[in-house]
Parts: sequence; structure tokens; C-alpha cells
Amino acid sequence: MRLQPTPEDRFSFGLWTVGWQGRDPFGDATRAAVDPADTVRRLADLGAYGVTFHDDDLIPFGSSDAVRESHVKHFRQALDATGLVVPMATTNLFTHPVFKDGAFTANDRDIRRYALRKTIRNIDLAAELGARTYVAWGGREGAESGAAKDVRAALDRLKEAFDLLGEYVTTQGYDLRFAIEPKPNEPRGDMLLPTVGHALAFIERLERPALYGVNPEVGHEQMAGLNFPHGIAQALWADKLFHIDLNGQNGIKYDQDLRFGAGDLRSAFWLVDLLETAGYAGPRHFDFKPPRTEDTDGVWASAAGCMRNYLILRERAAAFRADPQVREALKASRLDQLARPTAEDGLTGLLSDTRAYDEFDADAAGERGMAFEHLDQLAMNHLLAAHG
Amino acid sequence: MRLQPTPEDRFSFGLWTVGWQGRDPFGDATRAAVDPADTVRRLADLGAYGVTFHDDDLIPFGSSDAVRESHVKHFRQALDATGLVVPMATTNLFTHPVFKDGAFTANDRDIRRYALRKTIRNIDLAAELGARTYVAWGGREGAESGAAKDVRAALDRLKEAFDLLGEYVTTQGYDLRFAIEPKPNEPRGDMLLPTVGHALAFIERLERPALYGVNPEVGHEQMAGLNFPHGIAQALWADKLFHIDLNGQNGIKYDQDLRFGAGDLRSAFWLVDLLETAGYAGPRHFDFKPPRTEDTDGVWASAAGCMRNYLILRERAAAFRADPQVREALKASRLDQLARPTAEDGLTGLLSDTRAYDEFDADAAGERGMAFEHLDQLAMNHLLAAHG
Amino acid sequence: MRLQPTPEDRFSFGLWTVGWQGRDPFGDATRAAVDPADTVRRLADLGAYGVTFHDDDLIPFGSSDAVRESHVKHFRQALDATGLVVPMATTNLFTHPVFKDGAFTANDRDIRRYALRKTIRNIDLAAELGARTYVAWGGREGAESGAAKDVRAALDRLKEAFDLLGEYVTTQGYDLRFAIEPKPNEPRGDMLLPTVGHALAFIERLERPALYGVNPEVGHEQMAGLNFPHGIAQALWADKLFHIDLNGQNGIKYDQDLRFGAGDLRSAFWLVDLLETAGYAGPRHFDFKPPRTEDTDGVWASAAGCMRNYLILRERAAAFRADPQVREALKASRLDQLARPTAEDGLTGLLSDTRAYDEFDADAAGERGMAFEHLDQLAMNHLLAAHG
Amino acid sequence: MRLQPTPEDRFSFGLWTVGWQGRDPFGDATRAAVDPADTVRRLADLGAYGVTFHDDDLIPFGSSDAVRESHVKHFRQALDATGLVVPMATTNLFTHPVFKDGAFTANDRDIRRYALRKTIRNIDLAAELGARTYVAWGGREGAESGAAKDVRAALDRLKEAFDLLGEYVTTQGYDLRFAIEPKPNEPRGDMLLPTVGHALAFIERLERPALYGVNPEVGHEQMAGLNFPHGIAQALWADKLFHIDLNGQNGIKYDQDLRFGAGDLRSAFWLVDLLETAGYAGPRHFDFKPPRTEDTDGVWASAAGCMRNYLILRERAAAFRADPQVREALKASRLDQLARPTAEDGLTGLLSDTRAYDEFDADAAGERGMAFEHLDQLAMNHLLAAHG
Repeated sequence: MRLQPTPEDRFSFGLWTVGWQGRDPFGDATRAAVDPADTVRRLADLGAYGVTFHDDDLIPFGSSDAVRESHVKHFRQALDATGLVVPMATTNLFTHPVFKDGAFTANDRDIRRYALRKTIRNIDLAAELGARTYVAWGGREGAESGAAKDVRAALDRLKEAFDLLGEYVTTQGYDLRFAIEPKPNEPRGDMLLPTVGHALAFIERLERPALYGVNPEVGHEQMAGLNFPHGIAQALWADKLFHIDLNGQNGIKYDQDLRFGAGDLRSAFWLVDLLETAGYAGPRHFDFKPPRTEDTDGVWASAAGCMRNYLILRERAAAFRADPQVREALKASRLDQLARPTAEDGLTGLLSDTRAYDEFDADAAGERGMAFEHLDQLAMNHLLAAHG
Repeated sequence: MRLQPTPEDRFSFGLWTVGWQGRDPFGDATRAAVDPADTVRRLADLGAYGVTFHDDDLIPFGSSDAVRESHVKHFRQALDATGLVVPMATTNLFTHPVFKDGAFTANDRDIRRYALRKTIRNIDLAAELGARTYVAWGGREGAESGAAKDVRAALDRLKEAFDLLGEYVTTQGYDLRFAIEPKPNEPRGDMLLPTVGHALAFIERLERPALYGVNPEVGHEQMAGLNFPHGIAQALWADKLFHIDLNGQNGIKYDQDLRFGAGDLRSAFWLVDLLETAGYAGPRHFDFKPPRTEDTDGVWASAAGCMRNYLILRERAAAFRADPQVREALKASRLDQLARPTAEDGLTGLLSDTRAYDEFDADAAGERGMAFEHLDQLAMNHLLAAHG
Repeated sequence: MRLQPTPEDRFSFGLWTVGWQGRDPFGDATRAAVDPADTVRRLADLGAYGVTFHDDDLIPFGSSDAVRESHVKHFRQALDATGLVVPMATTNLFTHPVFKDGAFTANDRDIRRYALRKTIRNIDLAAELGARTYVAWGGREGAESGAAKDVRAALDRLKEAFDLLGEYVTTQGYDLRFAIEPKPNEPRGDMLLPTVGHALAFIERLERPALYGVNPEVGHEQMAGLNFPHGIAQALWADKLFHIDLNGQNGIKYDQDLRFGAGDLRSAFWLVDLLETAGYAGPRHFDFKPPRTEDTDGVWASAAGCMRNYLILRERAAAFRADPQVREALKASRLDQLARPTAEDGLTGLLSDTRAYDEFDADAAGERGMAFEHLDQLAMNHLLAAHG
Repeated sequence: MRLQPTPEDRFSFGLWTVGWQGRDPFGDATRAAVDPADTVRRLADLGAYGVTFHDDDLIPFGSSDAVRESHVKHFRQALDATGLVVPMATTNLFTHPVFKDGAFTANDRDIRRYALRKTIRNIDLAAELGARTYVAWGGREGAESGAAKDVRAALDRLKEAFDLLGEYVTTQGYDLRFAIEPKPNEPRGDMLLPTVGHALAFIERLERPALYGVNPEVGHEQMAGLNFPHGIAQALWADKLFHIDLNGQNGIKYDQDLRFGAGDLRSAFWLVDLLETAGYAGPRHFDFKPPRTEDTDGVWASAAGCMRNYLILRERAAAFRADPQVREALKASRLDQLARPTAEDGLTGLLSDTRAYDEFDADAAGERGMAFEHLDQLAMNHLLAAHG
């Protein structure tokens, strides 16, 4: 088992993840700020291939152009020195008080305009640094009370914003696609596009739907109690999995952003199995927060753990799929039949098939066991490497 | 305040709601079976306008054609006698053991074919009885373990099924649309199309998307912790709210199916406000289960409560919207600005507007209060009719 | 209906509630710091009777003794000028990084000792200011991962800490009791004493159990999906409801701290009904956070709303209990029988009563309706003042 | 690694688990009834040591004395033939309609008396069959609406019931203790004694507290989002873990009763680690439901999986605790300090220790990293046997 990551594994991290200082709703920062260039070097040493950022992670909010340039140059030098790439970038539209009621759907029109311009400015930088995906997380698009947000009007504004951004990258000729990141709540009481499904549906109403996909995050779907691999499967089925945020979450509660592998381990196993067998080719991006109990050593232990756990699960999932006993069990559970069309004979064939209904023995069919428990125990054995 | 329902209010009930016998996972039935025709008469007396059914509610599973006809005739006589209409019908694809691993996405192909034929048979009856909406709840489409269902293959089968049904109603010339009902879990560990968003997204991949909408149920979205009015708003925004199931639920737990008004009362207020102001013209359909503690009198008290609570909330929401103080508060919270496009001046205008970004004072804008608490307290006052 | 609060209503607020600056996990402060003395004056104007504090709310962490004294003096002057009392105080054992792994149960022994001394110091101030209740919320007592905390050892340390504090107030002769505040999670992944039940059980293992009770918070129990009035009822039954934190929460998610009345309104109604009928004599303490969308006006609108909503619900609950139709309904639901012992005849009587078992007709008894839906609809009518 | 169970492992199963016929709220039974004696033989073959039962599992409700005796005899013969023991028994107080509003806390007094007598009758049988633990799950003790149950009165009745039962076993001289099983909801909207904590607290108010402990069930606590090993730790700390129900649950939703190891795997690892290191000597009792997709083979595959998964986790947890690197990591995380008293010097010592407060450098202490991520990754490596 090879458990040392290499760039071929396409692991990436956000600057804000290992750089998180540990400020939470009830406590002050427990760690000092870190220099993005140091993060780049450290990630390269660990075997990552990419780094991602919010505009404000790289360039402090409100910097002058000169300061901005020096920050970018410093970062780019580290990229050049290490070979790390920037596969994705995103905008911070949630930290500054101006976004307290949202950005693209803020009730105040001038704030919406400002948010769009802030985004466009960072899209330019993203394109300049070679990013191919631009993530949009509407961290403040939502409400705590019923009349505060007319959701239909807000969706009009959200569509307007994404259509404008799509127009911008198109006219600029950028090779950049958008990945919308859903989340059900926190920091707003209820957020727009709360799940992968809502985001996928929204995309279909945009002017250039092909330009938009989703960036699902493990913990965000699990905060709604949803099965994460199922959501990813629907995104893949719709050809819309543009990016993914890997982390851990212990069920329905506040957003935990644990390292990948912590939280629901069995779900993580099925996720890796899906990503690897479905041919997902994008980055394996970790969007986690090393707990604020950790010092710098703990931060990097946590980052290393994300990658290690992915590699362990990848190896276990591959072994599961390769096991002849598993293949037999899948057949015993009729997964082969599920892959086959229900009616190759079309509607007419189906309607004229007397065995399909009139002569069908529902009671007998109802007695067939599905053998799912045996199959799932095989999965457990592979996950745990327990073959005795 | 008029709190007596009339057919103009378009209240409808499923046969299976007031007819529920109270069998739950831990207990036997506490009430006797009821005759559908009696239900029709009783609903008419209470002021409902419509009644809905699963095939097996009306005609016991496995009935001969002759028995089937007598049940339909008996039901139709009650409809004729009372003037109650059948706005919607649906198929039971979950009670019989044959559906234990799903219907349209069962791993077994012959079960999928049977499920389609069972559905088609009841679509004929639905059309015959004048239904305009056909609800599809995939009660068993899902899984308890990871390898048991290849979700992408299952979505292929689900699409195939809905495309075949769409072809059927089209070729038959039925004036019938489909309303897909999402649910996150129970009775399956995780279900396909778990939320309104996932169903809306799925519909866009069907051959005749215009033929399909959603039938959201209050409790189902709340079982995922989602804001129900927000989901309804997105369905309305997508022009896909074909039908709605009203009931009550106390948060994330098993499916409670309480009477409408029980559970999250504030959410119910905002829901009624939305349905009434958005011009939703479909039935107000109650899909609830009178608790098994109740006898027949309790069942009807519960049914009457559903309608009464809707009427109370309708009246309160109307008063809220009509109140000049509320209108002023909405403006103070800049809901008028949300209704206005962000960039009537288009991308070019936005990019050249120096006030939008360079000259924008984000700190000053961040200090503006949104006045949402005052607005929400006005809503509370109206909901509670507490104006002192 | 009198909806203007007066000191007789015993409403109190924490300095940290209306003083919350709006910093959350994803955003910076949106409001300026406020002077505690101003808060006192404003609360008095609104009709409150009490104000409460953490040590660090009143005296910035790390202040010298001189600075400390000046802060206390300034605060006391405002109390004297307004007549506001300090019914409760508590310790901030969660904001400073030193408490990142807990206070009384931190793995580091010197931090545990420091936490105890910090608490004792503020107990002196609490006693000096006349507080009768000292709240202990173990905001950081918990863990994110399995081996990080030996829970049995941690409970030993927690018991040790409370026993020491109990010894301290006893030896000092303070007229002060402790109220332990449970919370299931956030900011820690899982917290010790996660619910009212766990705290009540823990108290029984302390050296001076009579000295300790609970301070349940609406949202904290609801974050575990628990019925808040039920938990309060058990606390009252155990004679342990020493204090209460009123606020609002929309189900299982991050800690929202909405104003009282927001969130689960029906639960709030039953809570007020319980507090008022059970003769709870302590403060009605609001522990909420005015949303960060609000400016100062919004903060005070939110605070006023807390009190107003309590008064509305109090009036509605009283009317419900006074309604002869309700009394009849309660009897129809056999609440009178529930209040009667099951076996006044003792075990012997019960065992020799042939009607109790051998001759008991379980089927007939199972058919009796409980009439709960009618009763609950009467409650709804009273809550909404909908009597038409 | 030995993964074949033997009686020394003390695995037990309820008759109702492998005997579950698969009836759920939306579907009919998918499996035939099984003969308890067959279950006994099959369990013995698989390596279990014990079998448990509800009265109605063994003897159909309403059987005559003669029928009753023949069922008991038949069962006892199978026990004798196989050597299986009956470590625990319990009463079915939830299936029959008579219990629809509860048993010991039913509003109807005659139903409460009947429930007590039904329980006492089965206690006699339990004692006769050698059970040492009598489990009490109040499946129907609860409510769906606020006025339907006066919780304080209901707790009075619950105490009365347990006191009577305690008096009964005492006077009979039975060597039998009670284990109360908490659950937050389902089948009732909210249930009394919703968590381990509430049950532990309740026990302290009984007449013979030593006679009562808890029987926590994995899924029940997880339905409230609680950390199961933490709850078990508090029960152990209070010396009240009399029995345990092992199964699996995927977060906050309906009661899933998955086989042990399914659901939250990391939590299962920590649970086994705790039970084995804390010296819990009682049965490892599986209270699960083989999914209704399974036929008989699937049922037994599921049962075998429960035991196998426990044995895998036991082996992994032992290896974790034995690993010198883990011991070092535990020390680096200062678990040794947590095990040490905070103030061996007593209150006086603590108060006079200037290093404890005045001279304590909180900032420096706040900078110490806890090294929990490293420790948790070691646990992950052991759980997954991934040591590369």
C-alpha cells in the first residue's frame, strides 16, 4: 500500500484551511496568521499538487494596488519554486460586514453591484494564475426570518449575477467554469441553494448552463442528513461535478470541517469508491479546518491525515471492486440487472408483455432476498482489511 | 374571520390519510378500515372539494376485474352524490413485499416492469376520474447500504420510467401532468431525489420536462432540516409547483404526518403567505396521519383542524401584507431594492461604474442595519393577532 | 392584554446578548462594543428587572485590579441609578485560547487550576453584587475525537471542580447556588453533560447535591431535537430548575440564539404555560443574540420582542387553562386520571385485583379514543386567538 | 485475528431481532414468522451465548395458560439442548392498541394497572428462566401534543410503577435488576426519559436506586445526535451500565436498527474500546433489525456480521491501546494529567497557590498544541489496519 501522496494524486488545499487561525463563535484565534508562500512550500513538501484561495486570503481586504501586486508576486514565486498549481479560486463574500445580508442577493442593490465587481476582479486574478474552476459559495445568501428575503426575487438576483459572470468570462475568453457550492445553513439561518439538488436545478435556469456545475462539500450535505455519495452520484449523472470539497462531519450540527476521514468513515469509503470508479478527473480538494486545539504541528498532521486517509480508502475500494467474491455478491444482488434498461422493447413492448403484469407473480417476486447484508459485510471487510 | 371551509378553498385529502388505521413500526392498527365512499361523504360535509387516492386505497391489491369495477363504481357514486372531485391520484409502489427494493429502480428488472404496468393501469383510472395531476412518490427507491444501489444506474432507470410514463400519457392524450414527491429517507435509509431541489434537477434531464413538476410535502423537507417555504419558492420560481402536500412535522426525526398547523407554526404561516401571494392555484392537499391515539371522532377533528388552521393562517398572512406599517418595514429592510435588477445597465454599465467598486464605501454600507427583527416581530404580532 | 413589561415580570438579560457584536465563524463584527452601564440603563427603560454577566463582559480579560475596580464601580452606579438587579453571574471559560481544550476538564492540570481560580474570583464579585445564582456553562468541556478525552476521567475532574466550588461558597457563607447549563455540541464536537438529563444525573454524584441545579437553554436542548418543555418538566419534577435561558432555535443546526418566540412557537407556548403553572419563581432570562444584520435599533427591537412574546404567550396560556371547554377536553383525555396514583392500594392490592389483569378487556380499552387532536386544536385556537 | 464468536464473547440477541418480519410504516411483512426454538438453535450454531425476549415474542398475546406453558416448555428445551442462556427479558408494552397512549404513564389508570400486571407476569418468567436483567423500554410513554401529557404527573406515575416493580422483585427475592432503555422519539412524537442522562437522573428519585440502571441503545442516542461512547462513559461513571443494546444508525432520522458496525463506524470503534477497557462484564446484546430486503439467509448473514464486526473492532482497539506510539501520543496530549486530580492540595492549597492564577501565563498556556489530530490519526490507522 502506497500511502505517500504525490502530485499525480491531484490533492489540493485552500489557503484558508491550513491557515485557519481558530476563531470560532465562542473563542478567539489560537494560532498566528501564516504567510501564503509558506503554505505553498509546506503543501508541496507534503505531496500536494495544488493550492486554492479566496481573494482576501491572498490580499488583505482593502489593499492598495501596489500592495496587491506584491502579495500576488510573492505567492507566484512560491508557486513557481514548488511547481504547485492553482486549479481553483473563489471570492470572499462573507467576512466583511458589508455582506451581512448577502452579496449577489443582498437586499441593498449597491452591495450586490459591489459583490459582483469584487468577484470579477478576482476572476481576473484566477485566470491569470491559471485556475480552471471558479467556486461560488453564497455564504451569506439567505435569511433568519420569513419576510426578510423574498426568495423568488432573490433567485432572480442570483440568476442575474451568475449570468453576468458567465457573460464576463465568455467575453474575456477565459477558460474557466463556475462551480456552485451549496450549504443548508450557517452562517445564515437558512441559505439559498441549500443542497446539491437545489444548485443543480438552479443551474438549468441560467443563460449558459454548460458553464456551471457544482462544488459539493462533504459536511454541507451531511448537515442536512443527506447521503453524500448519493448527491455526488446525481451530480455526476448530470455531468456537473466540476469540483469537490473533501472533509469530515459528525452528522447534523454546526459545520465542523474535520479532516477527511474523520466523521462518517463508511460514507467516505463509498465516496472514494465512486470518485475513482466514475472517472472523476478534477482535484481532490480538502476544505477542512484543523481543530483550534492544534498548534502548527497539529495543523500539518491534520493536512497529512486528509491525504493519507484518501489513499487508504482508495486502495480499499479498489480491492473491494477487484474481489471475485464481491463481483459474485453484486450479481446475487442483481446489480447487473439494474444496469440493464427496463424496457428495451419500448412502451409498446412493455404494454403487450403479459408476463410483465397479468401473469406476474408478485408474491413470489417479493420473497426473493436481495442479499445486501452479505454484500455490505464484504465491503466492511475490505474497508477494515479484515479478511480472517 | 371566516373559518368554515368551502369547496372554493380547494382543500383535498387522500383516502389514506383519514383512512389510516394507525399501524406503526411498533404497534398494530388501532382503528378499523373505512369505506372510501364514507370518506368522500364525510369530507364533503366538512367543506373539502377533493379526494385523492393510491390504486390500492380504492381497490385492494390483487382484486379481480369485477371486484375492481365494483369498487370504482361505488366510489364514483359517492363523488357524484357529493360533488367532490378527484384532482390527483397516485400509485402504491411501496406496501407489497415485491417493492421492498424499489419499484422503478428495483434491482430486479421484472419488478421494474411490473411497477410501470401497475402505474399505467392506475393512470388510466386517474384520467377516467378526471385527475389532472399524477403524483409519484418513490417510497422504496433507495438503499440502506453503499453497494446495494448504483445510484447513477438507478437514475438512468428512474429517467427511463418517467420517460415511458410521459410517452404513455402523451400518446393517450391524457390531460395529466406528473408531480414527483421527494423525501430524504424512511422507509429506505436514503432515498433517491431526497429534496425538492434534487427532484427539480432530475426533471430537467427527462425527455418531456414540461410534463413534470414537484409535489413537495412539508414534513419531508423538514426531515432534512430545510426551510419549507424556501423550497416552495424555488419550485414556484422554476414554474414547477404542480401540487403540494400539507402537514406538520416537529423537526428532524421520523416522518410524523401531523395535521397542518402542528409542528413548525411560523413556517406554516410563511408557507400560506407564499402560496396565497404567489398565486398558486392548485389544491391545498392534506397528507397527514391522525395520530393512532385517536378514534373516529379524533380523526375528523384532526382533518377539520387542518383546514381551519390553513384558513386562520391565510387570514393572518393577508392582514400582515395589508398593514401599512408592514409595508413601511419592508421598505426599511429594502425588499423593494431586492425586487429591482442589479444591473439594468448590463455588464458594460456595471464594469464602468466607478461608484460600484472603486469609490464604494464598504465600511459605511456594512453599518446599515437591515431592520429585520422589527419586521419579523410585526409578522409575529399578525400571526398571533397580538396588536396591543 | 398588557404587553408592556415591568420589573414584576422578572425579565433579565445578559450583557453579552444585547452587547453581542456579531462576530461569527465566517464574519467579522458588525456592531461596535457597548458600555455595560449603557446596557443597564437601556434595559431598565424597556422594563427589565435584571442584568447578568460573565466576568469578561464587565472587566476585560487581564485587567489590572485598578481597572477592574473602576469597571465594577461604573456598572454598580448604573445598577443603583436604575434599580436593576443582578440575579445571576457566570464565568467566561471559553473565549481565551487557554481554554481551547476545556477549563474544569482541560487535559492540562494547570489550566484546570487557573479556571477554578478565575471562577472563584468572579463568584466573589457575583456575591458582592447580590447574585443568587451562579451559572456554569462548560463551553469547552468536550472533544472532537475519541482518544482526546477520557470521559470518565473528565467527569471525575468535573465533579472535583464543582465540589471545590461548592466548598468555597459554603465556607464563604454565600447565598449562592449553582446552575449547570447543558449543551450537546458547539463549540466542541461533543460536549460533556450534553442535555438537561445528563446534568441532572451528574449533580446527584456531587458532594452537596442540594447546591446545584440546572440552567436549561431553549436552543441547546432543541439542538439535540429534544422537547424543551419536557426537559423543563423533568427539571422541575427533580426540584432542580434554578434558572432558565430563553431564546429561539430553528431545529437541529448550529446554535442560533434567536429572540424568544422565534423558532418553535408552539413549544414556546407550552414552555410559558409550564413555567407559569408550575410556579417557577426565578428570572425569565433571555440568552439570545440579535442577528448580525441588525444595527443598534435592531438590537433593542429584538430585546423588546423577547419580552413582548413572553407576555403574549403568558396571556394566551392563561386563557387556555381558564377555558371551560379546555377543562372538559382535558377530562375527556383523562388528564385527571393521570394525576391520580396508579395503585393507592399498593402492590398487594394491585396483585389481588382480578379486574386489573385477568378480567381486563384490553381490546375494548384499546378502542377508546384519547381525543388529543381536539384538545390540541383548542390549544392552537388559544395560541392564535382564533375563536371564530 | 480470531473472528469466530464463542460463548465467552457473551453475545446475545433478542428473539425479535432475527425474528423481525419486516413490517414497517409503509410496507407489509416480507418474511415469515419464525419459531423461537429455531432461533435459539441457529444462534447457538453461530456462536452466541444468550437469547432475550419480550413476553409476546415467546407467547402470543392473549394465550391461555396451557398454550403459554407449551411455548415456554418448547423454548426451554431448545435452551437446554444448546446451552444458550437467557441473560435478559423485557415486556412488550407497545404493540397492542391498549398501549397507544402509554403503559406505566397512560392517562387511563386501568391501562396503567394492566401494564404493571403484564410486566410482573413476565418478570416471573424471566426469573424462572434465569434472567438477571429486566429491561424496561417505555416505547409508548410520551406524547405528540403539548396538553396530552402532564409530564410531571407522568413522571410521578413512572416512579410509582418502577417503585412497585422494585418492591415486587425485592419481596420475591429475585436476583434481578432493572435496566431502563431511553429513546428520544418514535413511536411517540417525544418520549419520556429521552436520553441516557434523563434516565440516570430519574433513577436517583426512585425508592431503591441501586436496583435500577440503564440499557442504552446505540441508535437511540444517535437519533438525538449524541456521542454514544460519551453517554456510555457517563453511565459507567455512575456505575449504572447494567446492559447495552448494540446496533447501527446513520444519524438523526427514523430508528434504523442496522447491524452493529453499520452506521457510525468510528463511534463503534470507540464504544468497543470503552466497553473492553472499562471492564463492562455484561452481555454484548444486539438489538437490530435485518433489513426487510433480506430473506432468511440475509437475516443470518446480518446477525453474523454484528458479532464479526464487534470482534474486529475489539482486536483493533486492543492493538491501539497496546501501541507504544499511541501511549506516547496520549502523553503528548496530556491524558495522564487528566487522570490526576486538579487539587490534591484541596481548596486551601489551590487558593494560596500564586502560580495557579496571579502568576499564571494564560497566553503561553494557550499556545500549547494538544496534538489531538496526530493521536486521532493513529486511531484511524489502527481502526483500518493501515500501517504503511
